[in-house]
Amino acid sequence: MEYLGIDDDEFIRGKVPMTKQEIRILSLVKARLSSDSLVYDIGAGTGAISVEAARLVPKGRVYALERNPEAVILIRANAANFALRNITVINEEAPTGISILPQCDAVFVGGSGGKLCPILEAVDSKLKSGGRIVVNCITVQSLMQAIEYFRAKDAEYSYETIQVQVTHLQQIGPYDMAKAVNPVYILTAKKWDKDQHGLADMNEKAV
Amino acid sequence: MEYLGIDDDEFIRGKVPMTKQEIRILSLVKARLSSDSLVYDIGAGTGAISVEAARLVPKGRVYALERNPEAVILIRANAANFALRNITVINEEAPTGISILPQCDAVFVGGSGGKLCPILEAVDSKLKSGGRIVVNCITVQSLMQAIEYFRAKDAEYSYETIQVQVTHLQQIGPYDMAKAVNPVYILTAKKWDKDQHGLADMNEKAV
Amino acid sequence: MEYLGIDDDEFIRGKVPMTKQEIRILSLVKARLSSDSLVYDIGAGTGAISVEAARLVPKGRVYALERNPEAVILIRANAANFALRNITVINEEAPTGISILPQCDAVFVGGSGGKLCPILEAVDSKLKSGGRIVVNCITVQSLMQAIEYFRAKDAEYSYETIQVQVTHLQQIGPYDMAKAVNPVYILTAKKWDKDQHGLADMNEKAV
Amino acid sequence: MEYLGIDDDEFIRGKVPMTKQEIRILSLVKARLSSDSLVYDIGAGTGAISVEAARLVPKGRVYALERNPEAVILIRANAANFALRNITVINEEAPTGISILPQCDAVFVGGSGGKLCPILEAVDSKLKSGGRIVVNCITVQSLMQAIEYFRAKDAEYSYETIQVQVTHLQQIGPYDMAKAVNPVYILTAKKWDKDQHGLADMNEKAV
Repeated sequence: MEYLGIDDDEFIRGKVPMTKQEIRILSLVKARLSSDSLVYDIGAGTGAISVEAARLVPKGRVYALERNPEAVILIRANAANFALRNITVINEEAPTGISILPQCDAVFVGGSGGKLCPILEAVDSKLKSGGRIVVNCITVQSLMQAIEYFRAKDAEYSYETIQVQVTHLQQIGPYDMAKAVNPVYILTAKKWDKDQHGLADMNEKAV
Repeated sequence: MEYLGIDDDEFIRGKVPMTKQEIRILSLVKARLSSDSLVYDIGAGTGAISVEAARLVPKGRVYALERNPEAVILIRANAANFALRNITVINEEAPTGISILPQCDAVFVGGSGGKLCPILEAVDSKLKSGGRIVVNCITVQSLMQAIEYFRAKDAEYSYETIQVQVTHLQQIGPYDMAKAVNPVYILTAKKWDKDQHGLADMNEKAV
Repeated sequence: MEYLGIDDDEFIRGKVPMTKQEIRILSLVKARLSSDSLVYDIGAGTGAISVEAARLVPKGRVYALERNPEAVILIRANAANFALRNITVINEEAPTGISILPQCDAVFVGGSGGKLCPILEAVDSKLKSGGRIVVNCITVQSLMQAIEYFRAKDAEYSYETIQVQVTHLQQIGPYDMAKAVNPVYILTAKKWDKDQHGLADMNEKAV
Repeated sequence: MEYLGIDDDEFIRGKVPMTKQEIRILSLVKARLSSDSLVYDIGAGTGAISVEAARLVPKGRVYALERNPEAVILIRANAANFALRNITVINEEAPTGISILPQCDAVFVGGSGGKLCPILEAVDSKLKSGGRIVVNCITVQSLMQAIEYFRAKDAEYSYETIQVQVTHLQQIGPYDMAKAVNPVYILTAKKWDKDQHGLADMNEKAV
């Protein structure tokens, strides 16, 4: 398993927006990948998350869904650049394309193109017990939709949300100058492992 | 006394950096201006702070120091645009130009061009007891210099520092999308009023 | 008109949550009060916003609505402490209590007790053209409700939203240590002035 | 190699301050550990960084230096709790204790007890070419010292600094309420690999 935290400028980027390094790291860690995990990357953009995930699951596979053909080319180029053979790129607009995928252990939702709820529905039907969904949100609306989705499903999921605000101290001559990166919400939903859930309930009662 | 909080786009700006509205508001409030205050605005840039300060001190005056001739033109244009007659623009690189100014009640230090300590020295010799110096810092180095200056003068000054990080929620179609503004440190130093200081000491001893 | 920016510890506080100084300042400035403004402070808590607003509207009046009797006592104590006679405290849970108030120029909504939409409805019927509503939100849900309310009323209102994250640098021995304050969303809705609106429409068409 | 991102409440904590999960994750990733890395954790506190690092370097070792005997007990308890045998706890106040350690690949500096510069000096003499030092700072002073140290050594090190502000959305009844965590500066210094450095220089000249 290789290191996390590829530098942003190691990716081929074009004009497609890319999840920045720190957000990528935290999202990947929150997903608790194993070396054989099956992973979806929905709205994969440049494929930065897909590439880092693929390196963490050498015995698994990453399914990258992306509607923008220009971005699809970038994902393939980045996968090739890091010599990764376990990324399957699917040029579809999610939730289209999800139904034929195998069951999965973890899901990243970056871009949702205004279809976050149907995407979460489609993903839910594929996610194994104990699996995790990590949603990156940059708008209040998509955050609210994700929160409402998982609140409505609180018999099956628990979730936590953080907002991460990174500021870079740029070295300009003798100065280190604060340059803000746009903040991102990272919502991590954990699907109850049915057996553990029962156990957890018992423990709570015992306490 | 007119309202605070002129919108950023009401100022004529050019390429000169401008203190953004929320930072301007907090800086101006921290300075505790009165209607007859004499105010320095050091490194005045576009004059946004000078203009807002001038409106708050209709019976006072703002001395705007700025080394960049292009910025000086902007300050004058902005003062004219808001029909303000109580701004004196001085095209000098501080601390040059401070020595001939009258004593003052409040000082804003925006740009310091790497000369923050000599500026604070020059300003200290002009600031009345009970007056305030508000320093906006966007680099670690200038923040550290300001802190060290006022820590060394802790018999005469107390200070507080906040870091302010504003994020705008930009309305893009059906979304409200987070756009970060670079964070700014606002250090506010209060020069002890000699009489009150004596009293404060007594109170502290009494407690 | 007196200075804005009373220090937090100048207020009598008890256990009631209080809007912190920087958020208070920005909220008050965004409301664009005039010396004769009629102001509502909904969910007034300790009355910190009411007190600062009352000082800015010496010829106007602040109506502070607050459901918690303990908080009502604090508001009255703080008003007395600052010798303010232009605060009317109303011990009701908004929107109850709003219908009998006079028309107003500005509204602050701090606490909404889960009734933000009916509060905004009640307030809308009282707010004069050109008036402003400033909503402070600390939860995603109330932010979303406020955004949806004003998006649905976009023929009458425009709005802007900022998130403000303040960090205090606490002086501990030789160090200045970062202590975060919880971030707050400040939504400012501006009710179109009907005459200006017509004009604005014309201008837009002309452009 | 096991997953990163142990939850904060999986650690035994006592009253000793602990680096929070997100900062831990980012710090560990920035250090670019390999499975056989030798790692120092200076000012190890509860040992949270040591434990996560030890899991990432199963063929390597973590040397945890900590002056506080109470914290030393916690580090040992946490190491035992995660069944880690590759943590060596040293009850010394750094830089004391560093001189007898073997050369290392990566260094975390959490607490420095006001001795950051001597610690960095001691650590520099032990760090292999290509190694990394990750400094977490919560005060302006320690950040400034770290920046000045690595600026003075710019022939041997490059560095980057980020400030990370995490906000948790706490689920309280029907609400998700923003609760800020104190921001932390993470400075990552990379010691030039002498051979690569020469190459980099050549490339730069070629460009």
